[in-house]
Amino acid sequence: MVLCTEVKKLQELVKAAKSANQTIGLVPTMGALHEGHTSLINACHKENDLTIVSIFVNPTQFGPKEDYKQYPRSLKKDCQQAENAGADIIFAPEAAALYPDKDMTWVEVTGDIVKVLCGRTRPIHFRGVTTIITKLFHLITPDKAYFGQKDAQQVEVLKKMVKDLFFPTELRIMPIVREKDGLAKSSRNVYLNAKERQAALCLYKSLTHAQDLYTHGERNPQAICEAVRNVISAEPLSNIDYIEAYSLPGLKPIGAKIKNKILVAVAVKFGTTRLIDNVVLGE
Amino acid sequence: MVLCTEVKKLQELVKAAKSANQTIGLVPTMGALHEGHTSLINACHKENDLTIVSIFVNPTQFGPKEDYKQYPRSLKKDCQQAENAGADIIFAPEAAALYPDKDMTWVEVTGDIVKVLCGRTRPIHFRGVTTIITKLFHLITPDKAYFGQKDAQQVEVLKKMVKDLFFPTELRIMPIVREKDGLAKSSRNVYLNAKERQAALCLYKSLTHAQDLYTHGERNPQAICEAVRNVISAEPLSNIDYIEAYSLPGLKPIGAKIKNKILVAVAVKFGTTRLIDNVVLGE
Repeated sequence: MVLCTEVKKLQELVKAAKSANQTIGLVPTMGALHEGHTSLINACHKENDLTIVSIFVNPTQFGPKEDYKQYPRSLKKDCQQAENAGADIIFAPEAAALYPDKDMTWVEVTGDIVKVLCGRTRPIHFRGVTTIITKLFHLITPDKAYFGQKDAQQVEVLKKMVKDLFFPTELRIMPIVREKDGLAKSSRNVYLNAKERQAALCLYKSLTHAQDLYTHGERNPQAICEAVRNVISAEPLSNIDYIEAYSLPGLKPIGAKIKNKILVAVAVKFGTTRLIDNVVLGE
Repeated sequence: MVLCTEVKKLQELVKAAKSANQTIGLVPTMGALHEGHTSLINACHKENDLTIVSIFVNPTQFGPKEDYKQYPRSLKKDCQQAENAGADIIFAPEAAALYPDKDMTWVEVTGDIVKVLCGRTRPIHFRGVTTIITKLFHLITPDKAYFGQKDAQQVEVLKKMVKDLFFPTELRIMPIVREKDGLAKSSRNVYLNAKERQAALCLYKSLTHAQDLYTHGERNPQAICEAVRNVISAEPLSNIDYIEAYSLPGLKPIGAKIKNKILVAVAVKFGTTRLIDNVVLGE
């Protein structure tokens, strides 16, 4: 495995792969790798000749009061994990290498898709995501790129960007990976103390309940969201940011009755740690 | 030569060229082709295996009071001219093919580079340009793309976009092509009546004067702009939008004395027709 921190070096490696007609897969990450990430790397390794994992805590997707500085960084451990999972190249640049100028060029999806859910409290987040992903896509020109369903709104926003701008990259979306007790794997789980960690189980419990209701015939999205809210707010340490449901694809409003596939998504704080989770209901 | 109006067809043609290891050159145009455009197509044809000319009057780069609807359209004549100049494929889609959704994904360069010169009166223009060029670059994945120095600010903005977002496409900038009497070739010249056409010669005259002053040692940018203003305002039919000078690359402020390469750019209305022209001074 090659660890590459320079843009020029990366471009040479990509050029060599293209010349050899290798297919390229990209797994963009912010490091602090867990089994969610390694499942993406595994899938990428299976489906492409060359697997590139980017490790970059992207400053432009964090708001001024968010956790950019304390976001967990563990490059050495990450490299080992990525290599074990099938990474051929790790691209881990400094922030200045990807953002050399003060005046930025932004890539921005507009519309309700970036205003609902996390967009309400993180107004610049998705602009940062789409901008960094564009840079990585241009540097690496991947045939396929891998993202986790855990970040469901990010997935929808990136699908919209790829469609609108005709990116020649296929997005591959992989299922949420959970701890044995159901907590969705997240780099931010390390922020939780023991009590918060236990309390956070209410997220999975609430979404499993939503799935049960749907399976037993409930088709009212408000009723499902209310049931999810009841489960989560029964946990004293929970502080709900949102519990919402939208139709898929595109996060459009559902109306009074669920007819097609929907996303039920939650964001909840436990102490100072904000966690997100979701479930997709229907076909 | 192939005339292609469908995105899918274009993607197939591009894929076939890539499979055959052909280099691809792109000349993006809004049609109404003149010798400025054909000089770009000639250069593209010489430097690439496959020359693609896009003909698309891009709605998002026109302001609400600008000439989108009356912009000259002449597809049949354009195709003939483009083929004669060396085009292999003409891509001429409907607006809905490139902008299928109401909610857009924008690519936007920020900073003074888009606020000076034409940016003062055309605040959404360059966002439209960078967005459509991104779409074309992704659809066509050109090795090289050709633009005219006539649109000097567009050139600087696109260079900034390509650098910031790491586009794997080389920008090739070709010199201004002029009529025998010096008027810069422009698709908008057809709007001019005979008197305005004659009056518009003051632009080239003023820029030649600027070049003369520089050659004879003038290094004060204000003095050069003032001299250009005197020549243009001596023409009764002229209505000056701007006469400004900025350092190259990047359109930065110059200061009191010209030290490196600078752009002297003008925008002037003759009747309802707004023309732009420019000269680059220094090394």
